[in-house]
Amino acid sequence: MLDEKILNILRNRPDDYVSGEELCKLADISRAAIWKHIEKLRDEGYKIEAAPHLGYRLVGTPDSLIPGEIRWRLNTKILGKEVITYKKIDSTNSLAYSLAEKGVKEGVVILAEEQTKGRGRLGRQWSSPPKTGIYLSCILRPKIVPSGIPKITLLAAVAVAKSVRELSGLWAVIKWPNDILINGKKVCGILTEMKAEQDTVNFVILGIGVNVNTPLKVIPKGASSIKEEMARSGSLADISRIELTRRILENLEEYYILLKNRGFGPIMDIWKSFSAMLGSRIKVILQNKTFEGLAQDIDDDGSLIVRRDSGILEKVSSGDIVMIR
Amino acid sequence: MLDEKILNILRNRPDDYVSGEELCKLADISRAAIWKHIEKLRDEGYKIEAAPHLGYRLVGTPDSLIPGEIRWRLNTKILGKEVITYKKIDSTNSLAYSLAEKGVKEGVVILAEEQTKGRGRLGRQWSSPPKTGIYLSCILRPKIVPSGIPKITLLAAVAVAKSVRELSGLWAVIKWPNDILINGKKVCGILTEMKAEQDTVNFVILGIGVNVNTPLKVIPKGASSIKEEMARSGSLADISRIELTRRILENLEEYYILLKNRGFGPIMDIWKSFSAMLGSRIKVILQNKTFEGLAQDIDDDGSLIVRRDSGILEKVSSGDIVMIR
Repeated sequence: MLDEKILNILRNRPDDYVSGEELCKLADISRAAIWKHIEKLRDEGYKIEAAPHLGYRLVGTPDSLIPGEIRWRLNTKILGKEVITYKKIDSTNSLAYSLAEKGVKEGVVILAEEQTKGRGRLGRQWSSPPKTGIYLSCILRPKIVPSGIPKITLLAAVAVAKSVRELSGLWAVIKWPNDILINGKKVCGILTEMKAEQDTVNFVILGIGVNVNTPLKVIPKGASSIKEEMARSGSLADISRIELTRRILENLEEYYILLKNRGFGPIMDIWKSFSAMLGSRIKVILQNKTFEGLAQDIDDDGSLIVRRDSGILEKVSSGDIVMIR
Repeated sequence: MLDEKILNILRNRPDDYVSGEELCKLADISRAAIWKHIEKLRDEGYKIEAAPHLGYRLVGTPDSLIPGEIRWRLNTKILGKEVITYKKIDSTNSLAYSLAEKGVKEGVVILAEEQTKGRGRLGRQWSSPPKTGIYLSCILRPKIVPSGIPKITLLAAVAVAKSVRELSGLWAVIKWPNDILINGKKVCGILTEMKAEQDTVNFVILGIGVNVNTPLKVIPKGASSIKEEMARSGSLADISRIELTRRILENLEEYYILLKNRGFGPIMDIWKSFSAMLGSRIKVILQNKTFEGLAQDIDDDGSLIVRRDSGILEKVSSGDIVMIR
């Protein structure tokens, strides 16, 4: 990865020019090759100044999902050490699934600038307009039984909500099981898929879709994007998708290791503190029935426990929730 | 399927000759075509007598896994209405999985005379020598959550054990979760695989491997075949793999519909009555520990409940069991 090598030399000297001669020496290539790589980086959207007698200086980085940009200063040991990006793909989850079936290892991340068949829970569509969102799928190989899968979804919801809070400063909350809301509007969805045997999970594909800088006019009704919600508080800047992706991967890994080492308890506690609905009145929509009640708690296995008006507790492991105001 | 049409005409008149003229009329084809199809059927192993002036008579049927043979008098509505057979394949489960991913419908059955990469639970190998066993995979699309998957395995174990009893007259029993034993030796294994989201199962591949007429010398140590166990009681005949396959599909469908209509309770009761180990002392081998205790019960979710000597109840949803005599 010579491009990345040259880029890293420039990145490490942000206020400085690096002479052509020095670049040649550090990257161990010829003067002509340097020029070719600088041009290629510029094509990818990097702004590189070339000053006579002084050399090269990096003055701008594109907010494109370039693997090197994501890996740059990414503080993880497993997740995102290998990143595969696409300009356009049918579904990052579908691709990650087929890679995992071929044995691709844990931690590999698939990203796309656009999805033509982005998918949500229960076969629903996930709107994925180009260059404004994050459409990310991650291959995980946790040592869990199939009934443990909701733990991975809840863990991911916590990691994403935390990352969104860190970067936007907005009060992102979780709606069970896997939506992230800002001001009551959905800005992120999570789709967990797996291949499993009766008593062991072969792999999990964790899919995360975030509306980052997506303009309201291309977002389905009722949903929003981080940028649109920040604009309400007067901030008009774009959010860096690269930085948000990095934070998501870092937080994911932190909680994933926490789950491995200390079980689900600590994550459930954080989940509850991020929850938009525990203690609220909700409507539960199942395939064959609908009922109202109080969202009382999350069970050890990740199910939602709802207290109906009759006092009966219902355990909800599937279905949709509507919050009643 | 002209072959099957001609075959069915002959099958329906087992003690009788059917004249060439009549065959032409009933199958609506020419005399020359009849001859061609009769030859093809003979190639497949059907024994068809041709007597001058009398016509044709079916006197013998091969015990090959021919789709038409399995479908002939198969009393099911869903399972096995479409059967795909192979002389040799890597794994029927792998093929069924990839077909299900492409949208192939519930009930389609894959069979092979031989598997080169037959698989068992937890990535283990399943020995699949040619033309002596049943290697069957079935595509199911049950409306269950991922944690419901053990129910399908237990249901299948009951269906197979019952079928083996019916055909062999031997006391086949179930060892949790999915082995069928005769005289303490494994004659059948079940591998349930699935693709699932957090709260919905996309499809289940139910794989069943039975050592039917398999000679002891090609069976892994500790296991056996139905024929070998029947030989101990003096019976030296082969078991019809076709008939056993049919019974398995019929019993599977019966219990599958029972599960759909009346829940897991009735199946669990039958499972318990077939169990080799409830009430027995067992050793449980998990990934990170081993313990002994009494196999006390099966939980609502299909887990095994073991009472340790300390009195503590352990719920076992994965792992291996050894019965202690």
